[in-house]
Amino acid sequence: MIGMINLIKSRTSYRGKYKSIPVPREDLITIMETGLAAPSGCNKQTTSLIAVDDENLLKDLKELINPPICQTAPAFILVLTQKIYAYRDRCYQVQDYSACIENMLLAIKALGYESCWYEGHITDDDDIAGKLAERLSVPKDYKIVCLLPVGVAEDEIKYAIKKDFSERAWFNGFGKKV
Amino acid sequence: MIGMINLIKSRTSYRGKYKSIPVPREDLITIMETGLAAPSGCNKQTTSLIAVDDENLLKDLKELINPPICQTAPAFILVLTQKIYAYRDRCYQVQDYSACIENMLLAIKALGYESCWYEGHITDDDDIAGKLAERLSVPKDYKIVCLLPVGVAEDEIKYAIKKDFSERAWFNGFGKKV
Repeated sequence: MIGMINLIKSRTSYRGKYKSIPVPREDLITIMETGLAAPSGCNKQTTSLIAVDDENLLKDLKELINPPICQTAPAFILVLTQKIYAYRDRCYQVQDYSACIENMLLAIKALGYESCWYEGHITDDDDIAGKLAERLSVPKDYKIVCLLPVGVAEDEIKYAIKKDFSERAWFNGFGKKV
Repeated sequence: MIGMINLIKSRTSYRGKYKSIPVPREDLITIMETGLAAPSGCNKQTTSLIAVDDENLLKDLKELINPPICQTAPAFILVLTQKIYAYRDRCYQVQDYSACIENMLLAIKALGYESCWYEGHITDDDDIAGKLAERLSVPKDYKIVCLLPVGVAEDEIKYAIKKDFSERAWFNGFGKKV
C-alpha cells in the first residue's frame, strides 16, 4: 500500500482558488462515508456532517463568512459535533471529529480534490459557525466546528515547512534517535 | 484511489492478541512519518512520537499498564502533546494529535498491521501515561496522551456497529437526506 502512504504524506492544506467544476454527489457521499468510518471514543459517534452543493445555499453561506474564505469552492462539508460523554465526565468529541476530518481530507485528496481544515476561522469570537448553523437549521445540541471546502485546485499546491523527523519522533526513549 | 477509500473504510479498532512477529524499524518509521504529515493548527506541530521496539523496555512499559492491555504487542507508539498556543488563547493540540493518530492508524493498516487508539485507558485518574512518561524520560512540558500497539493480528478482526449514514450525514441542511 505504498500509494496510501504516499497519499498521506502528500496531503497539504490548500488555501487557493478552486476551478468551477462541480463535485459529483457520489464523491461527496464517498468523502462523508470515510469521515464516518473514523473511530470515536467508546463508539459514541459524536460527529455528523452536512454537505452543501446547492448553488444558492452555497452563495448564502459564503456571504456569512467574513473575512471571506473558500469563496470559489464548488462544495462545502460542514462538520458538526455533539457533547456526548464516553463515560463519567470524559468526552472525546474533539478527538472524534478530528479523526473524521483527517479521513475526509485524505479521501478528498484521493479523489483528486483539495481542501483545508478551517476551524479557528469559523469558531472564533465572531461565531461564523453559529451563523452557518442557523442558515442550515442545525439544532442547538449540535455545534458546527469545521468547514471543509471541496473542489479542484486552480492554483499551485504549496507545502507547509515542517520540523525534521528527528525533532519530533524517537525510539525507545524521549529524544533518542533511530 | 479506490484502494485508499476502502482502506479508510476497513480500518477498525483491534483489541485482540498479536502474533510474536517483530515490526521492522523501517515500518515504524513509515508509520510515524505519516503521523507527522498530519496538519496542525497554524502549523504548530504540537505532536511528537516515541516508538518502542526494545524488548526489555516494552516489558517494563507493559508492567506499568494496569488493568493490562496490549500485552502481546511487539511494538508501541506513544503519542506526546505539547500545549503550544496557535494564536491568543487558542490551542489545537487535541485536534493535532488526533489527526496524527488517525494517519498512523491508516498507515498501520496499510502495512498489514492492526492497532487501537488507547487514550482514556492511560489518561484516566490513575495516570498510567504519567508512569510511562517517567520510564521514557519524557520532559514535563510534554504529555503522553495515547498508546498505539502495532503488530500482526492473531485473533479475528471485529467491526464496531455504527449508525446509518442517513443518521449522521445530510445534504444542504440539517437532517436532509440525499
